[in-house]
Amino acid sequence: MEIRTKQDVRDMARGAALLGVGGGGDPYVGQLMLQQEVLKGRYPRVIKASELADDAKVVSVCGIGSPPVLVEHLLSSKLLSKLMDEMEEYLGYKIDALISAEIGGLNSVMTLGVAAQRDIPLIDADGMGRAFPKLEMVTFSVYGCSASPVMIMDELGNSALVHARNDETAEHMSRAISSSLGAMVYSSLYPMSGKQVKDFAVHDTISLCFSIGKCIRESREDRDSPFDGLLELLHRPDEQRHCKILFDGKIVDLKHEIRDAWHFGTITMESHGDSKDVMVVEMQNEYLAARLNGETVTIVPDLIAILDSESAEPITGEQLKYGQRVKVLGISASPIMRRPECLAVFGPGGFGFKEEFRPLEELVA
Amino acid sequence: MEIRTKQDVRDMARGAALLGVGGGGDPYVGQLMLQQEVLKGRYPRVIKASELADDAKVVSVCGIGSPPVLVEHLLSSKLLSKLMDEMEEYLGYKIDALISAEIGGLNSVMTLGVAAQRDIPLIDADGMGRAFPKLEMVTFSVYGCSASPVMIMDELGNSALVHARNDETAEHMSRAISSSLGAMVYSSLYPMSGKQVKDFAVHDTISLCFSIGKCIRESREDRDSPFDGLLELLHRPDEQRHCKILFDGKIVDLKHEIRDAWHFGTITMESHGDSKDVMVVEMQNEYLAARLNGETVTIVPDLIAILDSESAEPITGEQLKYGQRVKVLGISASPIMRRPECLAVFGPGGFGFKEEFRPLEELVA
Repeated sequence: MEIRTKQDVRDMARGAALLGVGGGGDPYVGQLMLQQEVLKGRYPRVIKASELADDAKVVSVCGIGSPPVLVEHLLSSKLLSKLMDEMEEYLGYKIDALISAEIGGLNSVMTLGVAAQRDIPLIDADGMGRAFPKLEMVTFSVYGCSASPVMIMDELGNSALVHARNDETAEHMSRAISSSLGAMVYSSLYPMSGKQVKDFAVHDTISLCFSIGKCIRESREDRDSPFDGLLELLHRPDEQRHCKILFDGKIVDLKHEIRDAWHFGTITMESHGDSKDVMVVEMQNEYLAARLNGETVTIVPDLIAILDSESAEPITGEQLKYGQRVKVLGISASPIMRRPECLAVFGPGGFGFKEEFRPLEELVA
Repeated sequence: MEIRTKQDVRDMARGAALLGVGGGGDPYVGQLMLQQEVLKGRYPRVIKASELADDAKVVSVCGIGSPPVLVEHLLSSKLLSKLMDEMEEYLGYKIDALISAEIGGLNSVMTLGVAAQRDIPLIDADGMGRAFPKLEMVTFSVYGCSASPVMIMDELGNSALVHARNDETAEHMSRAISSSLGAMVYSSLYPMSGKQVKDFAVHDTISLCFSIGKCIRESREDRDSPFDGLLELLHRPDEQRHCKILFDGKIVDLKHEIRDAWHFGTITMESHGDSKDVMVVEMQNEYLAARLNGETVTIVPDLIAILDSESAEPITGEQLKYGQRVKVLGISASPIMRRPECLAVFGPGGFGFKEEFRPLEELVA
């Protein structure tokens, strides 16, 4: 894959919005930053993890804070450059490649921008294949890589270097620092080796993300419905990926609540016509569970996307409106994300749901 | 001054409780730690700032958090030793001497313990001559020394290294980190030169603190009232220090409120006998203003101490009880603390009072 034009950047951001499953921060801010690099002729290079040396030095970059604040501040290239410089200085070595911790939302597009800026490759992989609200909700952490040292910076020149004895504590500390600095900071974290990335990352998610965005755009022109193209791309049982349109209807009720710095919400939809099926999607920053007439049809870590029913444009949690006509898509998580040790961290129980995880393809069989 | 016995340690802690003016953290926890060192034969060495080389390397050590949590956790010598080791490693030089940021409450006694542990001198000075609730409320900060880098650690092995563009932000960040780690962490901060300490510290406060504690103990035996000795020690107009018993009575009303992580309180006292004078002391962690029948008689940064009316034992904000018989003491702050640039940070306005600072000796003249 190559990202060389404004259209490529927009495709990438559209894919990141879908894989953000309602959250992850608005990719638009990252899109502007990546676009700036691309227009200067600094194109991001995306490589497969298999191309890495086992002892290659890899880190992640991500924003920590409140998405609405992010949109007010935009993204400073200078800040990201300084962040990476100081991380290299602290670690005492040059970073060979970047990996996005989170493909969904802002972080993947932003990390592409940083890779372009520094002329180092971005690995075609991430730590979850979607978006999650907490630092420790990545495969890297599940398999023993430590988030620490976490280098945190804001655009005013404040910084903190965090060492936490576990990644849950790193999350608490980083979140607190972010709040104390106005709820939007940037971090470099999860220093890993090439070997660790090969073994523990969710692979090929950058190229998948780009393909999704491109497919939606192209299918709008080439197909009866953009969803035809999208399903062809995403439903590949031979590759252990399942995708299904779970619902087609309109939003009839929306409940939002900001509690403990999280965005909780319940989205209720009714189907068109006489059947009056009801779908309810529950969210905590991201869409977590979809229930059709009371029966679970997709649950975290499987992915739920809500798209405009005509254009297939992905809709984030903040963009949802009463009366919107939408289609709800269920997509199976990558097999690594469904392993018991992963489900223990970011399966239904990790979000307070009492039910066990069941795969999408069983629930809608 | 020499601190070589358990009694010396208790004297020091008693003085620190008085200079803590109601807050500063219970010195008892620091007393136990310092006593441990002294009983091992590791005596703290206290030197005058004038004995320092101008290029001597000095730092402060202090606890950041919630005093009630502190009392539950006690103090780990190992943690303080590790904190100092890592601060030296980060700064890249050996620390020649320590200075207490805050003479009142826990921090002075604890810093004496750290000095004894590391066999480096403690300077006979601090940054306020009393206790204050915030990191930036020290003369060091007023005169341009930076709190950063602030090295923060908890007893579980979590740490953060904070660089803030100003000390108010360092306070916000450190407070947030402390909260995220359970509200009690330890920090090393305010790296300074010997010259800066000479120019900007509040001098001779360690020896004053020790003298206060010793004087109260000795006066209980040698004098009609321990207050006789205490006034002789503290009221020295020739040394620009004024002290007066502002009130003698009993507590008839107590209001406590924990708001925004601060301990706000209003203490109302009535005099004995028929005159029925009323004294009200307002506190935010520390006692800040004393008003006799509605007229201000002492206001921050001048010191207000509430003592048991018989034993002259200093009473902290948490220890106050309805019906307690107390004497209220006003003590003038050190002249450096009353300069306009200092009053701008920790004068009445720094705590939301509308009135201007007026010196105790004028108010009660």
